[in-house]
Amino acid sequence: MKKLILIACLCGCLTIAKAQQLKSPDGKLTMTFALEDGGKPRYSLVYKNKDVIKPSKLGLELKDDKKSLLSDFTVTDTKTSSFDENWKPVWGEVKTIRNHYNELAVTLTQKETNRIMIIRFRMFNEGLGFRYEFPAQKNLTYFIVKEEKTQFAMAGDHTAFWIAGDYDTQEYDYTTSKLSEIRSLAAKNRKENLSQTSFSPTGVQTSLMMKTSNGLYINLHEAALINYACMHLNLDDKNMIFESWLTPDVKGDKGYMQAPANSPWRTVMVSDDARDILASKMTYNLNDPGKIEDTSWIKPIKYVGVWWEMITGKSTWAYTDEYPSVQLGITDYSKARPNGKHGANTTNVKKYIDFAAKNGFGGVLVEGWNEGWEDWYGHSKDYVFDFVTPYPDFNVSEIRDYAKSKGIKMIMHHETSGSVRNYERHIDTAYKFMKANGYDAVKSGYVGNILPRGENHYSQWLINHYQYALEKAAEYKIMVNAHEAVRPTGIARTYPNLIGNESARGTEYQAFGGSKPNHVTVLPFTRLIGGPMDYTPGIFEMDISKLNPANHSHVNSTIANQLALYLTMYSPLQMAADLPENYERFPDAFQFIKDVAVDWDDSQYLEAEPGQYITVARMAKGTGQWFAGSVNGDNSRISNISFSFLAPGRTYEATIYADAKDAHYKTNPQAYTVRKVLVTNKSKLAQLCAPGGGYAISFKIANQATVKGLKKL
Amino acid sequence: MKKLILIACLCGCLTIAKAQQLKSPDGKLTMTFALEDGGKPRYSLVYKNKDVIKPSKLGLELKDDKKSLLSDFTVTDTKTSSFDENWKPVWGEVKTIRNHYNELAVTLTQKETNRIMIIRFRMFNEGLGFRYEFPAQKNLTYFIVKEEKTQFAMAGDHTAFWIAGDYDTQEYDYTTSKLSEIRSLAAKNRKENLSQTSFSPTGVQTSLMMKTSNGLYINLHEAALINYACMHLNLDDKNMIFESWLTPDVKGDKGYMQAPANSPWRTVMVSDDARDILASKMTYNLNDPGKIEDTSWIKPIKYVGVWWEMITGKSTWAYTDEYPSVQLGITDYSKARPNGKHGANTTNVKKYIDFAAKNGFGGVLVEGWNEGWEDWYGHSKDYVFDFVTPYPDFNVSEIRDYAKSKGIKMIMHHETSGSVRNYERHIDTAYKFMKANGYDAVKSGYVGNILPRGENHYSQWLINHYQYALEKAAEYKIMVNAHEAVRPTGIARTYPNLIGNESARGTEYQAFGGSKPNHVTVLPFTRLIGGPMDYTPGIFEMDISKLNPANHSHVNSTIANQLALYLTMYSPLQMAADLPENYERFPDAFQFIKDVAVDWDDSQYLEAEPGQYITVARMAKGTGQWFAGSVNGDNSRISNISFSFLAPGRTYEATIYADAKDAHYKTNPQAYTVRKVLVTNKSKLAQLCAPGGGYAISFKIANQATVKGLKKL
Repeated sequence: MKKLILIACLCGCLTIAKAQQLKSPDGKLTMTFALEDGGKPRYSLVYKNKDVIKPSKLGLELKDDKKSLLSDFTVTDTKTSSFDENWKPVWGEVKTIRNHYNELAVTLTQKETNRIMIIRFRMFNEGLGFRYEFPAQKNLTYFIVKEEKTQFAMAGDHTAFWIAGDYDTQEYDYTTSKLSEIRSLAAKNRKENLSQTSFSPTGVQTSLMMKTSNGLYINLHEAALINYACMHLNLDDKNMIFESWLTPDVKGDKGYMQAPANSPWRTVMVSDDARDILASKMTYNLNDPGKIEDTSWIKPIKYVGVWWEMITGKSTWAYTDEYPSVQLGITDYSKARPNGKHGANTTNVKKYIDFAAKNGFGGVLVEGWNEGWEDWYGHSKDYVFDFVTPYPDFNVSEIRDYAKSKGIKMIMHHETSGSVRNYERHIDTAYKFMKANGYDAVKSGYVGNILPRGENHYSQWLINHYQYALEKAAEYKIMVNAHEAVRPTGIARTYPNLIGNESARGTEYQAFGGSKPNHVTVLPFTRLIGGPMDYTPGIFEMDISKLNPANHSHVNSTIANQLALYLTMYSPLQMAADLPENYERFPDAFQFIKDVAVDWDDSQYLEAEPGQYITVARMAKGTGQWFAGSVNGDNSRISNISFSFLAPGRTYEATIYADAKDAHYKTNPQAYTVRKVLVTNKSKLAQLCAPGGGYAISFKIANQATVKGLKKL
Repeated sequence: MKKLILIACLCGCLTIAKAQQLKSPDGKLTMTFALEDGGKPRYSLVYKNKDVIKPSKLGLELKDDKKSLLSDFTVTDTKTSSFDENWKPVWGEVKTIRNHYNELAVTLTQKETNRIMIIRFRMFNEGLGFRYEFPAQKNLTYFIVKEEKTQFAMAGDHTAFWIAGDYDTQEYDYTTSKLSEIRSLAAKNRKENLSQTSFSPTGVQTSLMMKTSNGLYINLHEAALINYACMHLNLDDKNMIFESWLTPDVKGDKGYMQAPANSPWRTVMVSDDARDILASKMTYNLNDPGKIEDTSWIKPIKYVGVWWEMITGKSTWAYTDEYPSVQLGITDYSKARPNGKHGANTTNVKKYIDFAAKNGFGGVLVEGWNEGWEDWYGHSKDYVFDFVTPYPDFNVSEIRDYAKSKGIKMIMHHETSGSVRNYERHIDTAYKFMKANGYDAVKSGYVGNILPRGENHYSQWLINHYQYALEKAAEYKIMVNAHEAVRPTGIARTYPNLIGNESARGTEYQAFGGSKPNHVTVLPFTRLIGGPMDYTPGIFEMDISKLNPANHSHVNSTIANQLALYLTMYSPLQMAADLPENYERFPDAFQFIKDVAVDWDDSQYLEAEPGQYITVARMAKGTGQWFAGSVNGDNSRISNISFSFLAPGRTYEATIYADAKDAHYKTNPQAYTVRKVLVTNKSKLAQLCAPGGGYAISFKIANQATVKGLKKL
């Protein structure tokens, strides 16, 4: 790496600024940092001689502060270092993660105010991360961020895979368009949601995935979002410059800070190979190492649940339709007339427990088990749930004992309805109740507008809450799967009990009108960059009117695509979301779901193109068994992969679950084939994938008996 | 009481409205309710043929609701009843309280919407209370109050004793003026405060005390403020009509309601004798009966504390001046350089414990004992205190054991700094810490702007919090004395562990520049209507520069006035607030403080004129010992009282602590006399009181030895 060199001004005019350079370990990425005229910090990024980030501003605008932290700086210190260590995640796509980067820490001192800000850059082979640090100092103690002014100046009108900027939801379908088209398409992108707040016609959310016309894949995101507001990006679509746009609080302020403090890391991933983006562990590597000493209680799980029947409208979360509204502790549910459609009743739950036990699943989730669902959203209701009082037909101890006898873990559900103060008031009691009744994992939800009223899902105040709930859960040895919370930013390295989030448009939307067929070819490039998603795949019946005649939604996916999701949508928490009876109709396809692992020692991305296809092979932790999966977007394609990931010198039986020739996500989604063939690590596969289709493969070492009956691929 | 009678329209035009009348048990008060043209509810109040409330509107304006709850009503039911029961408060001014009223409940049905609202009126001999009730019903479930539209139309330009309306503080000096002068005086009334938010040039707070030109005393307040926003009054000073003005939330809404629900009671007290206002128990009577089954742990207490030395600036709450700011759990206080002025150190605390034990006090309060005081206000700091981690020089267990050995209760201090989410997160741990370390009572504080940011001290969101903290304290058998919280509204009947509030301008302001000398002759008519005030009296050294040369504040009160406060400022929690050394300088005066009781079986108000003087006699619970006290306002006066409250046929020794002839709150505050005289229930006293002065008397049955040495009065 170079140190201090005099360099021509990055924007064409000569400055006597000391520019710094930082290269990735493999030398392909170069970051240049310099101070522009007036002491304004700038950075730029080049990958293999192609511009990734053109000279872009850095800094923060402060409230009630004439100077802000944008200019009048001098470089008073620079420190360079390298880091190269391996660490083992508790769960993940791979057994060991290499954390290898070159670092440059630039200390900036503001002349007039004598304030110090450090910008720390870490350059990995797959990208750059940088953050602002505010060390303990006399002249900077408490300050309020009016706006962060980090820019990402794009080198062209790239293609982007984006959702509209919003302070309250990420549950939109992705739009693929040029950056210049965002403005005209944003309103259409923002479909109706139970809680949504837009802020700019050219605002988009992170992580943002892009592809340039000269073959680069670029991803913008953040890592380690703790005690800070979530970052969106606002596009200046004249100049193609993104600028950070933080989520405001109720008063419009963007962050209350007290030095010493750090901002989250802003990340720029870049490669000419899309698979590198998916394989990158940079977001985790920028987070602090694990803070939980004994992690033996954190376990990946495959589960079913009393859920899809309510999502489709076949049954209800609510117990009764009798009252105009309910008040916990005052409404006497024992006197209420049951509506006869309540899904979370003991008998039905035991059916799911039986199904889970019979088919090798680890857990059963039940939603709608507790008092309060009759008017749980749309009323800004404060005391909406207490998280411990079951409905009359949900017998907590009977279910606890039955599940235990069957070797099944019950998964708790805490829908907060956005009433966050209420959740915090009850959270210790709720967590204790879980432990007393055999629940080790909780799916939490934040549906609807937030209380305290005026706050947004992604503000600093709420980011603080999600962290509070997570850290408290760790104290109780509870795993958390937080839906409608902020999208993850690698915090699961530090708190691996964060085993999932939703925080994007999940499978439920297939029952709310459907998602785009290529949705799942985008999500791993966007939402999954910071952590796994509880996507809840495994739907076999695509015509929802078959479950609920009043619901004409269609699941825009083939069965083979649904199977592939267990590979392509990595998560330590995987649901088989459909109803048991739908699985029983397709036992051969269901076999894959029964067989697939949820925790991995190795993963290899074989094919990837955002918005079009993703193919990945993974080796199960412990067993060493290989699986592969491919999801396809809008157009038919042939997936060409080699099985070179298999061990050399061995023969495997591959069971391939694929779209039938005439399969189509809309017109013929349930047409699939299952075939078994012999393969080795020299085999190649050319597999036809339907629109919205894909395939899934399970491998096992072939023994003599197997070899006899099968053909080679 | 009359039922349905046709009556000429209250505003001069004939309506075919059914008017209802409700009289007090003694017949002196008459309330008339009627519907005006358009089905608009109205009420009016007459006392002994004098107008108290001219015809005034009732109802609520709802958000996003065309109709609101203001008009289009018909009376679909009326119910009348009477109630007459005695109940015993756990602590109080009297042993038994009579709850005697006539009630009228009017059911109003809104024609267009078919919604039902009940207005319930209760008429006591000393005043009227009424509230809105929203029964469970199909057509009214969730609704948002845009503004409550309860009017109190005054019959003239009365004299009022008022403080400016404010969403965050009541710590203003009272202004005495005509209603018509409020507008021009409001800005001057609102002195600077660490958290303040005005809303109208003619807004005032409740309770509001007034005196009419035709000799009536009128008080407007509310009772049972639970899950609703605090009510201020906004004056239409053209027509002399007050209208309710609720405290808004962050978005400007005034209340989130779910039927079934009630508003608080709106109260109008009236008498031609000011003493009736002070003696009234109406506010308590309108609250629900006690909800705590075993109240044996709730005990009035007289206490001293490590507090005044910090208030005056003699010592500090903070432990160190070394850091630009502190972060709990990160700042290592064990390494910090002590500033040498930290009041809450073990040695100093033990001194106070010794002083308390030697002089018969029950408890010692200590502020500044816990980490975080270095930057506790002005920064909108979220994680400001944890309520359990002491400074290095405050030894929790040593102090606990020492206090116990001396028979002294330590009183805890929880300053929240307005960071309410933080307090709620820690409250269970904090309460448990208290019980583990011998603390049964806590003084809580809410200094500074509220977090969640944007909320105000008196909003529905915060009223809910104060109630949450109080009810949770009851579960832990903890007594609460909440400063800067909303002013009380009689809730101590239901939760008698609420032993105090500040929520007004207390003694500390005498060290912040001084309060008006007649301040204490107003407070019982205003702030104390809803519950006791922890006024922390007993200051003997009026020149604060003697404690802290940099503080030139002067306590605008004589010593005799300070002694009287133990009678006139009723509270189950009474502090002797000055430093032990100042009491030791005046042992004869201090004797009164040592002798005076804090809990009473009987109280008789002897003289009262708001803004001028209050004289009261009280009989101690248990001992039956009598005490009396008188506080005086700006002008010299002679207080004329009879001792008819004493038991007949007995002789008492009365020790009279009075202003010396030349005493004056400003120029000669420490001049007092102590004389012992013999009295009977036939004796009369004519006592000179200085400006800002008064007197205090303790009585004991005279024995033969006493009689010999003393003169008769």
